[in-house]
Amino acid sequence: MNSPKLIDPRLELICAARHFYQQGWMVGTSGNLSVRLPDHSFWITASGQCKGELELGDFVRIYPNGTACPEGSRRVEKPSPDVKPSAETAIHQVLYALFPEATSCYHVHSVEANLVSRFVKGDTLPLPPLEMLKGLGVWEENPDCAMSIFDNHLQVSCIVDEIKERFRTIPPQLSALLIRDHGVTIWAPSAKTARNYIELVEYIFRYMVAARGVGVWGVGEERD
Amino acid sequence: MNSPKLIDPRLELICAARHFYQQGWMVGTSGNLSVRLPDHSFWITASGQCKGELELGDFVRIYPNGTACPEGSRRVEKPSPDVKPSAETAIHQVLYALFPEATSCYHVHSVEANLVSRFVKGDTLPLPPLEMLKGLGVWEENPDCAMSIFDNHLQVSCIVDEIKERFRTIPPQLSALLIRDHGVTIWAPSAKTARNYIELVEYIFRYMVAARGVGVWGVGEERD
Amino acid sequence: MNSPKLIDPRLELICAARHFYQQGWMVGTSGNLSVRLPDHSFWITASGQCKGELELGDFVRIYPNGTACPEGSRRVEKPSPDVKPSAETAIHQVLYALFPEATSCYHVHSVEANLVSRFVKGDTLPLPPLEMLKGLGVWEENPDCAMSIFDNHLQVSCIVDEIKERFRTIPPQLSALLIRDHGVTIWAPSAKTARNYIELVEYIFRYMVAARGVGVWGVGEERD
Amino acid sequence: MNSPKLIDPRLELICAARHFYQQGWMVGTSGNLSVRLPDHSFWITASGQCKGELELGDFVRIYPNGTACPEGSRRVEKPSPDVKPSAETAIHQVLYALFPEATSCYHVHSVEANLVSRFVKGDTLPLPPLEMLKGLGVWEENPDCAMSIFDNHLQVSCIVDEIKERFRTIPPQLSALLIRDHGVTIWAPSAKTARNYIELVEYIFRYMVAARGVGVWGVGEERD
Repeated sequence: MNSPKLIDPRLELICAARHFYQQGWMVGTSGNLSVRLPDHSFWITASGQCKGELELGDFVRIYPNGTACPEGSRRVEKPSPDVKPSAETAIHQVLYALFPEATSCYHVHSVEANLVSRFVKGDTLPLPPLEMLKGLGVWEENPDCAMSIFDNHLQVSCIVDEIKERFRTIPPQLSALLIRDHGVTIWAPSAKTARNYIELVEYIFRYMVAARGVGVWGVGEERD
Repeated sequence: MNSPKLIDPRLELICAARHFYQQGWMVGTSGNLSVRLPDHSFWITASGQCKGELELGDFVRIYPNGTACPEGSRRVEKPSPDVKPSAETAIHQVLYALFPEATSCYHVHSVEANLVSRFVKGDTLPLPPLEMLKGLGVWEENPDCAMSIFDNHLQVSCIVDEIKERFRTIPPQLSALLIRDHGVTIWAPSAKTARNYIELVEYIFRYMVAARGVGVWGVGEERD
Repeated sequence: MNSPKLIDPRLELICAARHFYQQGWMVGTSGNLSVRLPDHSFWITASGQCKGELELGDFVRIYPNGTACPEGSRRVEKPSPDVKPSAETAIHQVLYALFPEATSCYHVHSVEANLVSRFVKGDTLPLPPLEMLKGLGVWEENPDCAMSIFDNHLQVSCIVDEIKERFRTIPPQLSALLIRDHGVTIWAPSAKTARNYIELVEYIFRYMVAARGVGVWGVGEERD
Repeated sequence: MNSPKLIDPRLELICAARHFYQQGWMVGTSGNLSVRLPDHSFWITASGQCKGELELGDFVRIYPNGTACPEGSRRVEKPSPDVKPSAETAIHQVLYALFPEATSCYHVHSVEANLVSRFVKGDTLPLPPLEMLKGLGVWEENPDCAMSIFDNHLQVSCIVDEIKERFRTIPPQLSALLIRDHGVTIWAPSAKTARNYIELVEYIFRYMVAARGVGVWGVGEERD
């Protein structure tokens, strides 16, 4: 997971996607990963590809709106006309705009992320006070932490607008958000940290689903 | 998962079967996969072979009834007299007849497919409104979708008759059907899509089993 | 999974053990596998070895009681004095004596086998009417099938005596038995079939645990 | 899993960590493993590294307090100034001090270890009477066994003090302890045994979580 600057950053996305696919978090072509470059453009996975077998040609490069592109008017770099960027590219764009320190943005579809998104009716999911939260930057004893949930509108632009509005008002506690019935998205300052964040939020979701199944920890339950 | 026409199509079935076996969906020699060729014959996995270690000789080629066979009266092509086609070959035949655009038909036996087939007494299983349904062709917000269930008669011909009768009357919403206590079958226009469909329906079944376990989403429950 | 007679039969046990270890069914050195040879001796895994990394030296050859041994008085062939046969060798011996057609006997320790052994207080576990029972030789529609359970005595000889007594009186429906809080044992006419049997019984146990978790099928429940 | 003295003992930690990572027990850089050398120093995993891809440079060597160090005043050997020993090094130190026969100390973070740590409010977790306890040294019929639980203080030194105080008073039944909401730690006389112990305690935790989910065995329940 070293990322010297000379290595094509798509290689890290290929490895991460294969790992997530093998975990069952990117099956059936689902999910999308991106990495931001120093010129503020980013590579994002193309739509409709098996995430366990990505190749360099399965990415699209998106240039920022309003920024001079390296080669004239080009705003998007595609290996072929058939390759389309992920339908959720606009979510990556808004997260990079909101969090300038982020260089990676990963979105995956685990069963558990879908389940926990239904544990509450509202737009905030309380998290259990696990040691693993330290990996997400929460260094407290018995921490009281929550993750934002957004509704899964058919129009991605509606999801984007709600993210922008809510996060500009109330910055999120964690570098992660849930879309209900859909999946989790994280953003991070490096590809290595992004992979860790995905592993950590999925770990917490697995815990929450199992804990609810055995009646150990539930939303609204008292903590000792 | 490229499928240039010159590659033996059995190779894709071998890879898909190994992957499904590793997921626990084709254990104990269970399940059967087929691919249809331009001449309307199809290759199907032989009966009784470990699906994690198939070889080219573990397939039987079935020629359509009433069609002139390439070599005179031959209706079936077998690598050796000991190799028998899957006992459920007739289910593949009826699905290829009903859905002419299908070129692949995959049938697997997950624990979860068996469980969800018991969630209802009737012949239709309502599905949760997950984002993943988009991969099965359902592009709606909060979709109201269902999968057909058939009873697991000892005589495969009885299952075939019920599929033919029901699907001629009411075309299925999805390219998938369940046989109760038995497994799921999908059909698709390419091997790549067939693999995605299996991954997607199994994902939805895993969600349904877990959701019922934790009381999140159940048959007959109101959707918000 | 071919087993030509010239290949050392321990190689098949090494492969099967690694596979079962990777499934979580032989962790912490648990379980034991054996294969019977034409001279009625059998190779069995040694005690205390990691089952994911067995080598040819990790087996002991046991010669039948009362049979002339190939090399005079030798009853046991060990690669070194430190290698001890499995503590449960006597269970393999009694099964080979009871079922002369068996050439392989596999015993593994899944979590699910332990759980289902507690689903009933008595000595018989009813099984759900799954299609997968066909792989264990049950070709009925909606079959009514059960597996024998034995108590886990500290003295293996007590378990052996109970197996002998019960199976001589009432032959088992399936080539499998459970030891409560301990694990499942199967016997089969070939190594290939033995591996399938383990996969099938473990599949059925996984189904039973999940079905009970979601209230789908339970012991004593009516079947429709 | 042979450990001849000439092989660098960090190699065994690298293999064990990769295996545990693949099981989901060391995700997101969590957990820490150590091995003690004949001079009573020990190698421990560095903080913040992915446990699935450790290299020889990802370890720190800790020399015992008050002992003459091989190279003058050096107390810690680090491959580079950036590499920091695990934040929980002091827990390894106290366990090596309490149990002089231990040469390996492994700490992992499974979901199940976190769940079972919440099955009781007090500081002792009763374990189910499984055969697998034999691998942890409990050779009894229907054994009555328990594991110590400690609270997860933010200050590691508080956890260390409680371990020291409790274990000096009441020696533990098993070579294992739980930290609530955090994970399990085991100590063992060899790397091979340490790996087996982790597999065995995690097996028991998986059983306990599933058993509670299906109502088979619970804390406080009568044993038959």
